[in-house]
Amino acid sequence: MNTFGNKIKITVFGQSHAEAIGVTIDGLPSGVVVDTDKVQEFLDRRAPGKNAYSTNRKEADKVEYISGLVDGKTVGAPLTAVIYNKDQHSKDYSELRAKMRPSHADYPANIKFGDSYDVRGGGQFSGRLTAPICIAGAIIMQCLKEKGVYIGAHISSIGNIEDASFDNTSFDIDLLQSASKKDFPVLDDDKGEEMKSKILEAKANLDSVGGTIECMAVGVPVGVGEPMFDGLENVIAHAVFGIPAVKGIEFGLGFGSSLLFGSQNNDEYYYDDDKNIRTRTNNAGGICGGMATGMPISFKVAMKPTPSIAKAQNTVNLMTCENDVLEIKGRHDPCIVQRAVPCIEAAMAIALAQFVL
Amino acid sequence: MNTFGNKIKITVFGQSHAEAIGVTIDGLPSGVVVDTDKVQEFLDRRAPGKNAYSTNRKEADKVEYISGLVDGKTVGAPLTAVIYNKDQHSKDYSELRAKMRPSHADYPANIKFGDSYDVRGGGQFSGRLTAPICIAGAIIMQCLKEKGVYIGAHISSIGNIEDASFDNTSFDIDLLQSASKKDFPVLDDDKGEEMKSKILEAKANLDSVGGTIECMAVGVPVGVGEPMFDGLENVIAHAVFGIPAVKGIEFGLGFGSSLLFGSQNNDEYYYDDDKNIRTRTNNAGGICGGMATGMPISFKVAMKPTPSIAKAQNTVNLMTCENDVLEIKGRHDPCIVQRAVPCIEAAMAIALAQFVL
Amino acid sequence: MNTFGNKIKITVFGQSHAEAIGVTIDGLPSGVVVDTDKVQEFLDRRAPGKNAYSTNRKEADKVEYISGLVDGKTVGAPLTAVIYNKDQHSKDYSELRAKMRPSHADYPANIKFGDSYDVRGGGQFSGRLTAPICIAGAIIMQCLKEKGVYIGAHISSIGNIEDASFDNTSFDIDLLQSASKKDFPVLDDDKGEEMKSKILEAKANLDSVGGTIECMAVGVPVGVGEPMFDGLENVIAHAVFGIPAVKGIEFGLGFGSSLLFGSQNNDEYYYDDDKNIRTRTNNAGGICGGMATGMPISFKVAMKPTPSIAKAQNTVNLMTCENDVLEIKGRHDPCIVQRAVPCIEAAMAIALAQFVL
Amino acid sequence: MNTFGNKIKITVFGQSHAEAIGVTIDGLPSGVVVDTDKVQEFLDRRAPGKNAYSTNRKEADKVEYISGLVDGKTVGAPLTAVIYNKDQHSKDYSELRAKMRPSHADYPANIKFGDSYDVRGGGQFSGRLTAPICIAGAIIMQCLKEKGVYIGAHISSIGNIEDASFDNTSFDIDLLQSASKKDFPVLDDDKGEEMKSKILEAKANLDSVGGTIECMAVGVPVGVGEPMFDGLENVIAHAVFGIPAVKGIEFGLGFGSSLLFGSQNNDEYYYDDDKNIRTRTNNAGGICGGMATGMPISFKVAMKPTPSIAKAQNTVNLMTCENDVLEIKGRHDPCIVQRAVPCIEAAMAIALAQFVL
Repeated sequence: MNTFGNKIKITVFGQSHAEAIGVTIDGLPSGVVVDTDKVQEFLDRRAPGKNAYSTNRKEADKVEYISGLVDGKTVGAPLTAVIYNKDQHSKDYSELRAKMRPSHADYPANIKFGDSYDVRGGGQFSGRLTAPICIAGAIIMQCLKEKGVYIGAHISSIGNIEDASFDNTSFDIDLLQSASKKDFPVLDDDKGEEMKSKILEAKANLDSVGGTIECMAVGVPVGVGEPMFDGLENVIAHAVFGIPAVKGIEFGLGFGSSLLFGSQNNDEYYYDDDKNIRTRTNNAGGICGGMATGMPISFKVAMKPTPSIAKAQNTVNLMTCENDVLEIKGRHDPCIVQRAVPCIEAAMAIALAQFVL
Repeated sequence: MNTFGNKIKITVFGQSHAEAIGVTIDGLPSGVVVDTDKVQEFLDRRAPGKNAYSTNRKEADKVEYISGLVDGKTVGAPLTAVIYNKDQHSKDYSELRAKMRPSHADYPANIKFGDSYDVRGGGQFSGRLTAPICIAGAIIMQCLKEKGVYIGAHISSIGNIEDASFDNTSFDIDLLQSASKKDFPVLDDDKGEEMKSKILEAKANLDSVGGTIECMAVGVPVGVGEPMFDGLENVIAHAVFGIPAVKGIEFGLGFGSSLLFGSQNNDEYYYDDDKNIRTRTNNAGGICGGMATGMPISFKVAMKPTPSIAKAQNTVNLMTCENDVLEIKGRHDPCIVQRAVPCIEAAMAIALAQFVL
Repeated sequence: MNTFGNKIKITVFGQSHAEAIGVTIDGLPSGVVVDTDKVQEFLDRRAPGKNAYSTNRKEADKVEYISGLVDGKTVGAPLTAVIYNKDQHSKDYSELRAKMRPSHADYPANIKFGDSYDVRGGGQFSGRLTAPICIAGAIIMQCLKEKGVYIGAHISSIGNIEDASFDNTSFDIDLLQSASKKDFPVLDDDKGEEMKSKILEAKANLDSVGGTIECMAVGVPVGVGEPMFDGLENVIAHAVFGIPAVKGIEFGLGFGSSLLFGSQNNDEYYYDDDKNIRTRTNNAGGICGGMATGMPISFKVAMKPTPSIAKAQNTVNLMTCENDVLEIKGRHDPCIVQRAVPCIEAAMAIALAQFVL
Repeated sequence: MNTFGNKIKITVFGQSHAEAIGVTIDGLPSGVVVDTDKVQEFLDRRAPGKNAYSTNRKEADKVEYISGLVDGKTVGAPLTAVIYNKDQHSKDYSELRAKMRPSHADYPANIKFGDSYDVRGGGQFSGRLTAPICIAGAIIMQCLKEKGVYIGAHISSIGNIEDASFDNTSFDIDLLQSASKKDFPVLDDDKGEEMKSKILEAKANLDSVGGTIECMAVGVPVGVGEPMFDGLENVIAHAVFGIPAVKGIEFGLGFGSSLLFGSQNNDEYYYDDDKNIRTRTNNAGGICGGMATGMPISFKVAMKPTPSIAKAQNTVNLMTCENDVLEIKGRHDPCIVQRAVPCIEAAMAIALAQFVL
């Protein structure tokens, strides 16, 4: 369903071409000053059309608050924010009803919802629905900051081009959030240039390319998490798989840990100079037994390449019940990884809110 | 918390050295004949002490049913099954209260629960608590089978030794479940021998080693899954991270997808000879937009090496508030991957039950 | 929180003077034609200003659908409907921040939410928030009708004036819904006239008056309900107490049953002429052991008199920290029972939807 | 389902004649000393066979703790307590499969669960299942006490014989819990004697009789409750309807409020001598807008007469598909109201735990 969370409930609504898309956040503390400019700014980080690396569709995604915010402050009532969709031009979508786009939600959605499924622009499965998640995330991050919790993320790879990694034993907030100020959110700008070339290469080939995103949170108190089934990993993974195109998640060293011996993988504790308990390495990604160890919480997600590509593809035609060929028209993102960075931060915020707020 | 699921609720209870460990399953259909021998057999797949590759502790894990089962049939009431703990020998656990075992739950648990935390044998964080999950999984798998849903898994790698992979475009049930009959559940027995050597190597070095598990389900109907936040990936990942030592999960090609172009990663649809809609490849792992495509649902999990190793390790001592050295005594698994295979199947069953039963 | 339900989730948002109030309904079947005229009509039944018996404030409550409805049909995505608030005139609310209105939510809300609480027009505790519940209820009732489930309600009493009662052994739909077509929804119009006099008497005295509402559903299948904690009574009561001013609920004979002997209270089963199993009486209100017996499900709720009265009242002043006297200005309902009738039907619909849709 | 609560989860399991009945409580704070003697004592208050007013069946309900309690203290893991059923004598239950007992769960349970439904002793619908609720309630009440929250209850009426009422403006704990020490828990012992006569009269007539119970909690902090759908009334009602035979609930004056004018019903606030904010009356039962006002929280429940009576009753026979006559054999409670008093307290505790612990 479209609601996430117990303590802080996020309900996302809308379809790509509905009158509006939006989100209701319930359970926020009251009296929190929401910096709506910063929310808009955060949202703009996922906006398309900024450069050659994403689609040149323009989405004027202006956040409007219709409940729960009075004089810029939360009031204890659910906060609802919407983005009204401007261009609901009535294109001809009949081809999409017939020919199933490979690796899109179309086919299972057609079976699940029947022919009343809103096929326009991907309907409820459109990447556009990550905008409400970003709004919720941006607001919640402002609340988390009050509790000393900070979140950052960056593109970790595009295709086989890899960025530098976060140092997940560091508590440096500026470093953590350094990529977020950049148009192309990487740690190593040279690698960023290579990534852009890779994206342009895909674009030139009427193709798309995948990548990974690394996300980290600093300041989550030791012991946070409710194992066995509501540990940090369970809940973060649950939220993060709400972002379309995510196909994997690993905490700390993740799949890398599976290659190691215990003596290599274990994170030894020590008292630092200020008598804080730290670990020398953080292969656990700040989580043991589902609970925070006090070290930064880090994870990486795999994002598949955008399934919408201009190249001709084989598929089935539900109308003719025959195999067919599909050429997807329109403007598409050759890569959505860079736009997904704030979405992953937002999903992390929504997950952590359940424990920390 | 220790309850999972909405439609079929699983509540796990117990600690390693409590009077009992057990599970309550609520919401099962009534009138289902439970083959309790098969449940016991399934549970025995995770039992330790069978060979040199796991600990030689003996756990006589006999399942007893204390509610919900009459004459071998479910009755509509919650089914509760327990394993009474036999040897609650009162070892001296004072060292474990002081010295935090690296990469174990000890430290966050100590902070979270204080000194009343049950430290004996790992308490509620013991791998022993996967036994109730296996019981629930075994029962639920019998119900899923009635719906045409079958689950299988195998060790995918131990350290850097890799098993063959499932063909995730195949609907062959025997193949799917072939590894489950083996003492050492791999597809390629030669690779299995190499893995065993790797484990013995770790054991000889007073060390442990990690690995990966591949799991697959066949027969999940098209359209199953409740996006955006209760899609198949969200819910399966949520359940699977309930198994201790899991540090990552990827569906289908997962992180591999991030390296590809869309034209390589997309799964083209076609009508097979029986006019079933299939995909030629299944890089999506049977899930698009959080919903089943009708293809087998496949995922892989990363398991870290057992954190309990006999080698001396640096750590903190909470009593002296100084850095200290820890030597963990007792018998430990040099590798828990082979024992975790049924646990991952069980977690998958518990997740799918929410959608299919 | 402001979300109700598991299978069909209702999320209500807004405050009396927010930009909008609204509701998101998630989990509706797709492809359902929503008769939006009937939704508006249903909503208008709770509208104020229609006559002397309620406040003469005008609320132009026009429902607008911003997601989930395409060409008048549900699409499988969450349906969000809003009412934009027209007159957000900035009255001086400082007295309400200081002087707590007796038997209103003001005082606990002030303590809970602090001075950022939205005090304008009662904020999130305004009876106005029942409008979104009515929208959800009206839509859901259209879905329930498809399943053969019908709901009706009427004023059962105003003060000590009692209406006739539903025959809760009857399956007559027209009778069930006869009151709903009336401006003043009673079964016995003569009694209705007496009630109106009672209301006008209260109004003339700058006072208000309470009452009761009887509600009944026909067509709920035998066995529906999930005891022990999600039986029909648990869930219906849970929903109904979401309507402001409800202070009690009884199913079937309810408190009347407590006065009887078992032989008087028990509902004897019999086969009717069509071999349907029925009960001669229905003191159980169609529910035994939390499950539907197949007989009409009936309950009655107690509604307290509107707490807003024009008479001077003693109270505390949080600013001066002294006892004080309050005179509530503005237009108030001398009775909200007649306006609450559709709200109770809606709450019943929302509850039944969890079991029947 | 059989799980209640979000923060503190109660999962009840068992049937009347299962190997055991029991409860798992998850989310309890760790390190709480549980006085198990007091738990047993509390449970014994609902035990049958103590006197002529209840059944003379003996139930040796000894609580055993199988997880979550070490050295008498909670450890942060789920606490599971069970009562093993001693006498699972295999009576002939074939008549109960055929002839539906009026006003029992039999008929809907038969339809819902089919012939695998556990009919022995009422199965999962037996009043016996209130024992686990009492265990949970007793433990939780010990935790609530630490937070300054106290709960008490008494028989409010048996048939038309009424006990005195709680003064719901009083914070006197001794008074609140005075009835709980009595064998027959009333405030006015003379009225108690009349009630006993009424019960014996019913018994002599092979009949049963209903009654009401009043329950009150002192010390719930102002503002507690999560409206609109998780207010105190929603959640308390939800829990209380889990107790079999409850057919109605009213908070404060409840149905009495429906008879009054606002000026009569409103609870005026004042500062008492210690500058506490109080209300002169407490017709609201300590709840406004779903939130605690700081005054005692009071409610009354209606309990129907025990449906099991020895008198011959008409009913249907599902085997012959004909009308039939049923004579229920065995020992039955002529009244369960006195035994239900601790159950109602327990349900209140379970509900309040969601907000206060």
